[in-house]
Amino acid sequence: MTIAQLTKALATFAGERDWGQFHSPKNLAMALSVEVAEIVELFQWTKEEDSCHLTPEKLSELKDEIGDVMIYLTNLASKFNIDPLEAAAQKFEKNKKKYPADLVKGKSAKYTEYGGS
Amino acid sequence: MTIAQLTKALATFAGERDWGQFHSPKNLAMALSVEVAEIVELFQWTKEEDSCHLTPEKLSELKDEIGDVMIYLTNLASKFNIDPLEAAAQKFEKNKKKYPADLVKGKSAKYTEYGGS
Amino acid sequence: MTIAQLTKALATFAGERDWGQFHSPKNLAMALSVEVAEIVELFQWTKEEDSCHLTPEKLSELKDEIGDVMIYLTNLASKFNIDPLEAAAQKFEKNKKKYPADLVKGKSAKYTEYGGS
Amino acid sequence: MTIAQLTKALATFAGERDWGQFHSPKNLAMALSVEVAEIVELFQWTKEEDSCHLTPEKLSELKDEIGDVMIYLTNLASKFNIDPLEAAAQKFEKNKKKYPADLVKGKSAKYTEYGGS
Repeated sequence: MTIAQLTKALATFAGERDWGQFHSPKNLAMALSVEVAEIVELFQWTKEEDSCHLTPEKLSELKDEIGDVMIYLTNLASKFNIDPLEAAAQKFEKNKKKYPADLVKGKSAKYTEYGGS
Repeated sequence: MTIAQLTKALATFAGERDWGQFHSPKNLAMALSVEVAEIVELFQWTKEEDSCHLTPEKLSELKDEIGDVMIYLTNLASKFNIDPLEAAAQKFEKNKKKYPADLVKGKSAKYTEYGGS
Repeated sequence: MTIAQLTKALATFAGERDWGQFHSPKNLAMALSVEVAEIVELFQWTKEEDSCHLTPEKLSELKDEIGDVMIYLTNLASKFNIDPLEAAAQKFEKNKKKYPADLVKGKSAKYTEYGGS
Repeated sequence: MTIAQLTKALATFAGERDWGQFHSPKNLAMALSVEVAEIVELFQWTKEEDSCHLTPEKLSELKDEIGDVMIYLTNLASKFNIDPLEAAAQKFEKNKKKYPADLVKGKSAKYTEYGGS
């Protein structure tokens, strides 16, 4: 499935249910944050080094939550004719200029100041 | 750009900067929530009906933030070999079964109880 | 109950359950964000003008969530000997200087730029 | 400063600036989540065991952010005549019944399932 196909499917889904009235950008931004919190919840008490190892149940839950975040992100972005993948590609180019590898490499202690993605 | 291409580019980017050490799923989940909050911030004082109309500056900011969310979501998902678009497609199929159009249509007052996407 | 009493009760509670090991500031910050998302969830599809009117069930849920946020905020703050109420009082003084009433009054359109609390 | 005093001071502050119009519960919930994300940001790349040790600058920033969260939490709670400290005390009593010490003590591996505060 492509972003364009997902966008179209979501619009049809909302239209058939008359749910477009709830999908203001403000509301979609709130819903997006609620879904992301469900991902955070999966990792909140986990030790960092264990956070790669999920039980099959948690992994299945994570996949669902990632799906929900992708759905709301695409829904929100579509209100402004933004393609999330294209936005990521453009932001990625900015990041490459902002954090030159030779300047920041190995300076892990400065990571917070540099930011990074 | 496809999800696969973005995933690969992000891995190279992190590798060149020796930043993989920071990219535990726990940390990526936190970073994802911080980026989403920057989207919420854009809409926090806006009236719902005005939230579709952003100034060019805000729109450009929103595109950057959507890019950041997409980057962290893809980064996190890649740790578990999850494709965000495929996860969205699967979750979307679940949603279609969970909220049959003929059952929930026009029952907007019940939207909160039904959830929805 | 005062902040000091709550802080002491929470420390005893965690100690009796041997849960102190989970209560790093990093984890408490994550838990705090998860609880706040449960408040956001209560209002995500509500119209702004209706958001003051909650059903008795939602109101009871909101009270529980506000309690949870206060618990985690106090728990996190206590790790750094910070009193949330004192921190609020200090921040409030800063806000009064930052946003002089005669400068910002009635300039609602500029509210986003001014920020405010 | 007590919660009652803070509540009154915040109402006066908003009144003098004609900002009450922005302070719907929906908007306050969003603002609360944005402030909490600024706390999460302080800890997102920190190792768990280092998250207790902040530089003086970060500590000062954390105090400000805790103040902001307390301000928005009190503001939101006041719209429903809820006292955050009283809500915390009530929720704390519920938690004591929900997680009996003799049942959950030392069962740290089950912490996620038990929840906890």
